[in-house]
Amino acid sequence: MDGVNHQFRLAARPVGLPKPSDWTYVEEPVAEPGEGEVLVKVAYVSLDPAMRGWMNEGRSYIPPVGIGEVMRAFAVGEVVASKDPDVAVGEHVGGLLGVQEYAIANGKGVFKVDPSLAPLQVYLGALGMPGVTAYFGLLDIGRPQEGETVLVSGAAGAVGGLVGQIAKLKGARAVGIAGGPEKCGHLLEDLGFDATIDYKSEDLDAALSETCPNGVDVYFDNVGGEILDAALAHLARKARVVICGAISQYNNTEPVRGPSNYLSLLVNHASMTGFVMSDYLDRYAEAVREMAGWLASGQLISREDIAQGLENFPEVLLRLFSGENTGKLVLEI
Amino acid sequence: MDGVNHQFRLAARPVGLPKPSDWTYVEEPVAEPGEGEVLVKVAYVSLDPAMRGWMNEGRSYIPPVGIGEVMRAFAVGEVVASKDPDVAVGEHVGGLLGVQEYAIANGKGVFKVDPSLAPLQVYLGALGMPGVTAYFGLLDIGRPQEGETVLVSGAAGAVGGLVGQIAKLKGARAVGIAGGPEKCGHLLEDLGFDATIDYKSEDLDAALSETCPNGVDVYFDNVGGEILDAALAHLARKARVVICGAISQYNNTEPVRGPSNYLSLLVNHASMTGFVMSDYLDRYAEAVREMAGWLASGQLISREDIAQGLENFPEVLLRLFSGENTGKLVLEI
Repeated sequence: MDGVNHQFRLAARPVGLPKPSDWTYVEEPVAEPGEGEVLVKVAYVSLDPAMRGWMNEGRSYIPPVGIGEVMRAFAVGEVVASKDPDVAVGEHVGGLLGVQEYAIANGKGVFKVDPSLAPLQVYLGALGMPGVTAYFGLLDIGRPQEGETVLVSGAAGAVGGLVGQIAKLKGARAVGIAGGPEKCGHLLEDLGFDATIDYKSEDLDAALSETCPNGVDVYFDNVGGEILDAALAHLARKARVVICGAISQYNNTEPVRGPSNYLSLLVNHASMTGFVMSDYLDRYAEAVREMAGWLASGQLISREDIAQGLENFPEVLLRLFSGENTGKLVLEI
Repeated sequence: MDGVNHQFRLAARPVGLPKPSDWTYVEEPVAEPGEGEVLVKVAYVSLDPAMRGWMNEGRSYIPPVGIGEVMRAFAVGEVVASKDPDVAVGEHVGGLLGVQEYAIANGKGVFKVDPSLAPLQVYLGALGMPGVTAYFGLLDIGRPQEGETVLVSGAAGAVGGLVGQIAKLKGARAVGIAGGPEKCGHLLEDLGFDATIDYKSEDLDAALSETCPNGVDVYFDNVGGEILDAALAHLARKARVVICGAISQYNNTEPVRGPSNYLSLLVNHASMTGFVMSDYLDRYAEAVREMAGWLASGQLISREDIAQGLENFPEVLLRLFSGENTGKLVLEI
């Protein structure tokens, strides 16, 4: 295979927000797949808040990206060379292919996707990690019942928008917290949320009282910080808090802000449970099958925020943390 | 009924630790029971950390004690007059009788206790609220499995000492956090804990690594604050954190310290669940029956710390917050 592969490699562990100098942009020849491997021409790279955690040293649910290594990322693309008899050239696959134009992957380490069923980028959103995260985080841990109130933060993000829609499909009320009137309008008009809270302009406590008059039965938290604290103060009895992320805290240079109102769990006999999608890998297909059905029938809307050009990766990634994206942020190569 | 009844009534809502001026010591004639009521001569008043919360204004799992009202407390005593056909004079009962020498109670609002089966004060400890709290908090929420490590803070307190013993009875390892060598010795030698951590003299993080080398499967928290944070950093995968109390935070004049390490729940797929005993009132008898069996067979040890004299109530109560008591703190009248 002739040609050039551009990549972003991790140059340094960021302190706070990742800076340009935390990356090296590398050009190298496209590699040949070895036995059992495939070469994938990447079409879309997924940008996810979890990537910030992967850049830190130290124990987590998966090892950190090493200094000098290609940045870890989910991506989808087309197989352009194959030494795996089960994967043919021309097929499309997704997986942890990294922030690069061409990826060598073990044929067993990627999953096939069908661009005739849904656009390729949807396999990074509703039919990918965010979809599976929303599905199991809400249904397996949040367990909303009909008529209950489901509150979700980061509601205009990749996971949050799906959480609210799945809550509605299960007969619950969906209340979304997002930043700005545009995002809130999208939630109400496009995604069918029952109510929204604009954390940038509204008093959180008053808005929670108004939008969740019977308390919050399920709180799906993507952001942490003061929004988590405000939600804890509005829990209903036996509420379930799903800790999916804490994007407000990922770039902290000070210690993480713990939720002062955690004793609300005690007085309300409520629970707070952490969740990473990788615990549900063995049930991935179950979620994707159901989400695909809802997408096909029009009951679920997938929205992607598509940025262009691998070379823009460092700055596009920052949009996650400034709250600029609406829907699943992906980079088209 | 002739005679005088001494009582402590709440005079003011405390800021920080309760002061003498937050109480009024009242003398009034002993009252006559009305129809369906009983008059109880109180023998032992229970002193519990939860009482501090009952003194605060605001929403909680039960209403606060009103200013001017007799301070709420569990107590046991002897029925000395009865207008309830189901309760005879000379029988012993327990319930929320308050901090006073004589209490009028609805006959249906008290439960009978048998001083021939266990000393009266045990019905305020292992066979009372602390026992039921330890039993359901550990078994229903913590759900320890054989061979797992159960860590408990406030381990030399009324609830903590029982939690460790019940954990051992269920085949788990019990590790207790307590203050000072005397308490730690009591846990190891009298109560059969496998290991202890003296938070006053040891480095918590190092001691947790040493005593819980495979991580903490169940953490039963009575204290909150920095001990909760340290424990969160040592959770095993799918750990269960039981939030039973936060005695380090009850007298705060600043906001409660939230657990900075709560994202350990996320990376470990762990849960943190709040718990108040009142959610288990319908299963109270189940716990007392099993605890009584263990006490009778010598498998469970009940330890009470008995102080004397109703008039000493305000200062004895403070021993809970200074960590002076070992075992269940009660006041003998």
